[in-house]
Amino acid sequence: MSAAGLPAGAGPLALIAGSGRLPIEVATEVLERGETLVVMPLRGIADGDFTKLQTVPIDALDPVGAIEALRRMGARGVIMAGTVHRPGVGLVFKSWQAVWNSEVIRKVIEGGDDNLLRGVIGYLEDNGFPVMDLREAAPKLMAGVGLLCGPQPSVTAAVDIARGFEILETLGPADIGQALVIAALRVLAVEAAEGTDAMIRRVRTLRRPGLTGRLLRAWRPPLGDRTGGVLVKAAKPGQDFRADLPVIGPRTVRLAAAAGLSGIAVEAGAVLIVDRQATSAAAEKAGLFIVGAKR
Amino acid sequence: MSAAGLPAGAGPLALIAGSGRLPIEVATEVLERGETLVVMPLRGIADGDFTKLQTVPIDALDPVGAIEALRRMGARGVIMAGTVHRPGVGLVFKSWQAVWNSEVIRKVIEGGDDNLLRGVIGYLEDNGFPVMDLREAAPKLMAGVGLLCGPQPSVTAAVDIARGFEILETLGPADIGQALVIAALRVLAVEAAEGTDAMIRRVRTLRRPGLTGRLLRAWRPPLGDRTGGVLVKAAKPGQDFRADLPVIGPRTVRLAAAAGLSGIAVEAGAVLIVDRQATSAAAEKAGLFIVGAKR
Repeated sequence: MSAAGLPAGAGPLALIAGSGRLPIEVATEVLERGETLVVMPLRGIADGDFTKLQTVPIDALDPVGAIEALRRMGARGVIMAGTVHRPGVGLVFKSWQAVWNSEVIRKVIEGGDDNLLRGVIGYLEDNGFPVMDLREAAPKLMAGVGLLCGPQPSVTAAVDIARGFEILETLGPADIGQALVIAALRVLAVEAAEGTDAMIRRVRTLRRPGLTGRLLRAWRPPLGDRTGGVLVKAAKPGQDFRADLPVIGPRTVRLAAAAGLSGIAVEAGAVLIVDRQATSAAAEKAGLFIVGAKR
Repeated sequence: MSAAGLPAGAGPLALIAGSGRLPIEVATEVLERGETLVVMPLRGIADGDFTKLQTVPIDALDPVGAIEALRRMGARGVIMAGTVHRPGVGLVFKSWQAVWNSEVIRKVIEGGDDNLLRGVIGYLEDNGFPVMDLREAAPKLMAGVGLLCGPQPSVTAAVDIARGFEILETLGPADIGQALVIAALRVLAVEAAEGTDAMIRRVRTLRRPGLTGRLLRAWRPPLGDRTGGVLVKAAKPGQDFRADLPVIGPRTVRLAAAAGLSGIAVEAGAVLIVDRQATSAAAEKAGLFIVGAKR
């Protein structure tokens, strides 16, 4: 356990934990499979309750310390889960610049969000600790195939879902977003840098009376139809499933309901559903469907 | 001048005028070419100063009256220019349902904005009045090729422009929007139903400190680069140039400047620049370039 670049030991899996419920959910699934696991909560970032688990807190600003901790436990691999706000990632890189090639760092930072995470992953793997694909680390958290909860989609919704996935496929090479809202075959919003939540909120605004909403408010006056539509979310082509994969959760459902959508369609096996129970409950309560579809 | 479906006379061109500066600009260019023109301001909608021109006001809620007026003047064709707020269009159709096949009306309304206009155009043409392509009616209003005003784009901006048009091309078949914002090859926003103005405002929000803006605020902390980027706007494939073509104007420039963009790139010959003088002045003042590029 000394030289960098060598594979790590046969010890436990190490879960580097950011904020949110995801780390505890991943940890639970890994432990239920009978694997050994050490949670490494990021100090000041992780907010899960890990009291019943073996933990080794690490500091996002001390990459050398993190690698040393991984070496001490002979970790055979790393799982990354949870949110790390970008300011945090920025600081991380500032401090990591001292220990890693600054040319690489610059490239990583200039490349945007995806590259930031790829940089962290690269650093861990360069030091001999493979980072696991979350689909393998916690397969049960991924959306399955078929109707996952809520009512059966209408025919209109089913057509929207099919067309939505088709359009996301088209958007793939442009490396734009992973989600859109489509209603009666009309694309109401496409996600780029703003994130899925902000995109759904935009649809609500478009449909609400008000300055910006006036246009769509009167969009189909004789039919009075200001609701319906589906949030369609999929993985990007070339998605790195070792971190930051597409996620939906209870908040996604609540926002979709507020925007008048009839449901959510996600790529099965590629989109993670966080807090499954609360997500299903929110969907049932709002009468929204969630379906998983294979590409 | 009696039977519907017959070509109209050899009389003047008729300009059906909505709100905004565009109708008066189109009228000026048509008259400068030496053509005869009658402006038909939509009552309660048109707000231009047509006092020096020959006018026959019409009512958006009286399609029969509009057709009769066109017949009386023996109009040889119709030009449509200016904004008609959707509530207006909605009412139009409600009243037109009495005189036109309600199946057609329903289809038109269900198809969204584009189809609404196509419906009006279809109604006029079915009654024997061809609707002119605005590129032919007022070619000087369209963006030309090259640097139209402001400073030369940087190399980064030039690369963004090329990539932006490439991505819009990709989006074409999905029939989404006509515009996006791209900065250092990263797509910050894609326009769908919200319109270009709302999309540019979103980029400003993303870059501004605040709840929703936090993510991108810290996007590249070590470089501190929160400005730059280009608004790229083009016609959709299959764009109907008889009405509602892509437009930029002084407000577009002001919004782009507020969002920290370095310039605007439009498809030459396909995007209309309204209020050219004020648009150029705003761009020069903000140090923003406007370039036109042939596809």
